[in-house]
Amino acid sequence: MGKILLKSVLMQNAGEKPVRKDVLIDGNRFSKISDQVSPDVAGNAEVVDCKNFALLPAFYNGHTHAAMSLLRGYADDMELSKWLNQYIWPLEAKLTAKDIEIGSRLAVLEMIKSGTVFFADMYWHREQTMKVVEEMGIRASIGVTIADNLMTEEGLKANFEFLEKHTGESERVKLAVMPHSVYAVGEANLKRCIGIAEKENYPLHIHLSETASEVENCKAQYGCSPVELLQRLGGLGARTQAAHCVHFSEKDMEIFAKSSATAIMNPCSNFKLSSGFPQIARLMDAGVNLALGTDGDSSNNNLDMHEDMKLAALLAKVQGGAEKLPAADALKMATVNVAKINGLDAGAISEGMLADGILVRLDNERMVPCHDLISNWVYSADSRSIDSVLCDGKFVMRGGHVDGEEDIVREADACARDLASR
Amino acid sequence: MGKILLKSVLMQNAGEKPVRKDVLIDGNRFSKISDQVSPDVAGNAEVVDCKNFALLPAFYNGHTHAAMSLLRGYADDMELSKWLNQYIWPLEAKLTAKDIEIGSRLAVLEMIKSGTVFFADMYWHREQTMKVVEEMGIRASIGVTIADNLMTEEGLKANFEFLEKHTGESERVKLAVMPHSVYAVGEANLKRCIGIAEKENYPLHIHLSETASEVENCKAQYGCSPVELLQRLGGLGARTQAAHCVHFSEKDMEIFAKSSATAIMNPCSNFKLSSGFPQIARLMDAGVNLALGTDGDSSNNNLDMHEDMKLAALLAKVQGGAEKLPAADALKMATVNVAKINGLDAGAISEGMLADGILVRLDNERMVPCHDLISNWVYSADSRSIDSVLCDGKFVMRGGHVDGEEDIVREADACARDLASR
Repeated sequence: MGKILLKSVLMQNAGEKPVRKDVLIDGNRFSKISDQVSPDVAGNAEVVDCKNFALLPAFYNGHTHAAMSLLRGYADDMELSKWLNQYIWPLEAKLTAKDIEIGSRLAVLEMIKSGTVFFADMYWHREQTMKVVEEMGIRASIGVTIADNLMTEEGLKANFEFLEKHTGESERVKLAVMPHSVYAVGEANLKRCIGIAEKENYPLHIHLSETASEVENCKAQYGCSPVELLQRLGGLGARTQAAHCVHFSEKDMEIFAKSSATAIMNPCSNFKLSSGFPQIARLMDAGVNLALGTDGDSSNNNLDMHEDMKLAALLAKVQGGAEKLPAADALKMATVNVAKINGLDAGAISEGMLADGILVRLDNERMVPCHDLISNWVYSADSRSIDSVLCDGKFVMRGGHVDGEEDIVREADACARDLASR
Repeated sequence: MGKILLKSVLMQNAGEKPVRKDVLIDGNRFSKISDQVSPDVAGNAEVVDCKNFALLPAFYNGHTHAAMSLLRGYADDMELSKWLNQYIWPLEAKLTAKDIEIGSRLAVLEMIKSGTVFFADMYWHREQTMKVVEEMGIRASIGVTIADNLMTEEGLKANFEFLEKHTGESERVKLAVMPHSVYAVGEANLKRCIGIAEKENYPLHIHLSETASEVENCKAQYGCSPVELLQRLGGLGARTQAAHCVHFSEKDMEIFAKSSATAIMNPCSNFKLSSGFPQIARLMDAGVNLALGTDGDSSNNNLDMHEDMKLAALLAKVQGGAEKLPAADALKMATVNVAKINGLDAGAISEGMLADGILVRLDNERMVPCHDLISNWVYSADSRSIDSVLCDGKFVMRGGHVDGEEDIVREADACARDLASR
């Protein structure tokens, strides 16, 4: 692998002023960040003139269902059970492996264009999504999804074997154990999931306390909240990534914080499906480790981490005061906090870390004036300001363009038309 | 003025499927919308091939402070009084007329690039902003701001005279009477404002019940809520545009709804400054006429109506159920609802209306698949999908570019640097 020198790029550490630095990438890591990288250190690096750019961490999407991109806008503005039963599930039942491949490709394109280089994905036909991620140069934690209600015992067995063999894992693509939820997976299989995550050292990723009725039903069935159930089964720990966490009691928050599990907030989705207000300020006060995700395209309706980051920051403030979750901390929730729990030495621009990042145009009118680079990025910009995206030391987008994007869009459009008419 | 023919452009009416139409613009109005506009009707129109575009209404920003663009990111993440007293007001005190011109130009550029063609502006040195709006080809309702605490009797007199003479009004630029708020304007001057708005037929635009303390202080001073005070003074009616309206009691909502006044929601600003949750669902249930604005760049921190539109739609749902404020209605709050109260025969694409609109790229990955055009625009897209913006029958942005934008950005950047060091 080669070297890239980002020459005189604007950077900012939290609480400091923006400064110009030279950033040298060697292979897939940031190898040198200093006022000036000398020519002998830079060697034969490709020099990128960054006078017009800021270098910021790329996004890491903590929770999504990538191939649901094909269902974007298919059903909106209706309550959850109607949405699922009458629209989403009947259409999902028609999805083939090829559809999943095409939908995943659209989703990965969408993520790259909005500055995301990693996603934790819970869906079906995982091999297709893994293939697309390998091809397109980003990273993912691909869920092996477990759902009792939708799977035969044979299917379950095959999935656990897939996990035991670490099938198809690579440097950029990892697997994770993803029991869907406490309502879609019975106690026995929850235990199997927890066991294999421990044994094989996988993240354990689950939808948790997304709606009030999930909590009610869990109490009726198990006599405790979903958080308490997970704790009882030994499924709450540092490897636990719980998506949503909207309906936590005070006691749930306390248990969850102590366990070192991470709550993945998906505020756009929770608002849109009327699941409830994620209690970001209270979760922070309780000491819960927080990260961010977008959820799928059919409930958000995009995979733009920037939107969820801004909404999370704003929501924390209206819930807990204007000082709550400053810009730099909101950015961490969308970057390093997600990277870390997925075993990635990434999510911040510093020497030795994986060379992921985005180049943001400083002449974009929403990045001006530049009293504070991080504030501008978090509160003002949108994806239009992103010029280039780096993942693993390589450009996956440059000058606003991703290789092959026209074909990806065309193919997804045709596939979705066909799907709707099947 | 010439003619423009938007050939085979995708459009969608609420509740219907997207369809292709030919749209003829003659002078500053949509003159013909049909499956095919014949060559003899089109005449010498400039033909724009719109195979790759959807035509959607442009945004109308119901409440802003344009030139505060220079203060973007200057102070964030702090409570309101510290923000105002220690940061915003001291810097604002240094703003010259020239600064206001430069800041207004940056703001108008930002608005055009995010698809906005009108704004209702409450700020100082209004002549500068008026000049910029004329130059850049969009529309505005420019406030003559009244604030007792900041103005001499002479200044007030000059402002009222300015209004009596309809100074500087044109087809695209109108004036409005803008008493700042019930806490910054005493009873006598509120009455003068209400009187002149009636007499000269101006919109009456005011900050209303933005914070809990505003309501408390009003009750202490006047023995009633800000809404009741306005009603008592005869200042609540169809011409009334009240920004924020975060802290309305049930009774306030009832009075306000009956009066036919309009509440301009600014959810991003209310969240960020921790003013409170605007009660969009309850206001809708009470029958209050609602429209949208962004507030200024130093509290949002952008002027992108799309963000406030999406947040309003999402907030209505989490407050009132997933069916609340469907995409098409959220779009109306950001378009025709604002246009109408500002006397504009605009905000929707239909024959006879003012020819304002945006061309959105259908090959943008977030506009695909196109199960529902309006849903994609409201919930999925961001400003990157906007190719062109039309105002008053002319392109003010084309192919993503606004004439002179590089100079505007450069000048604003230099001005803000100088301002911060004064």
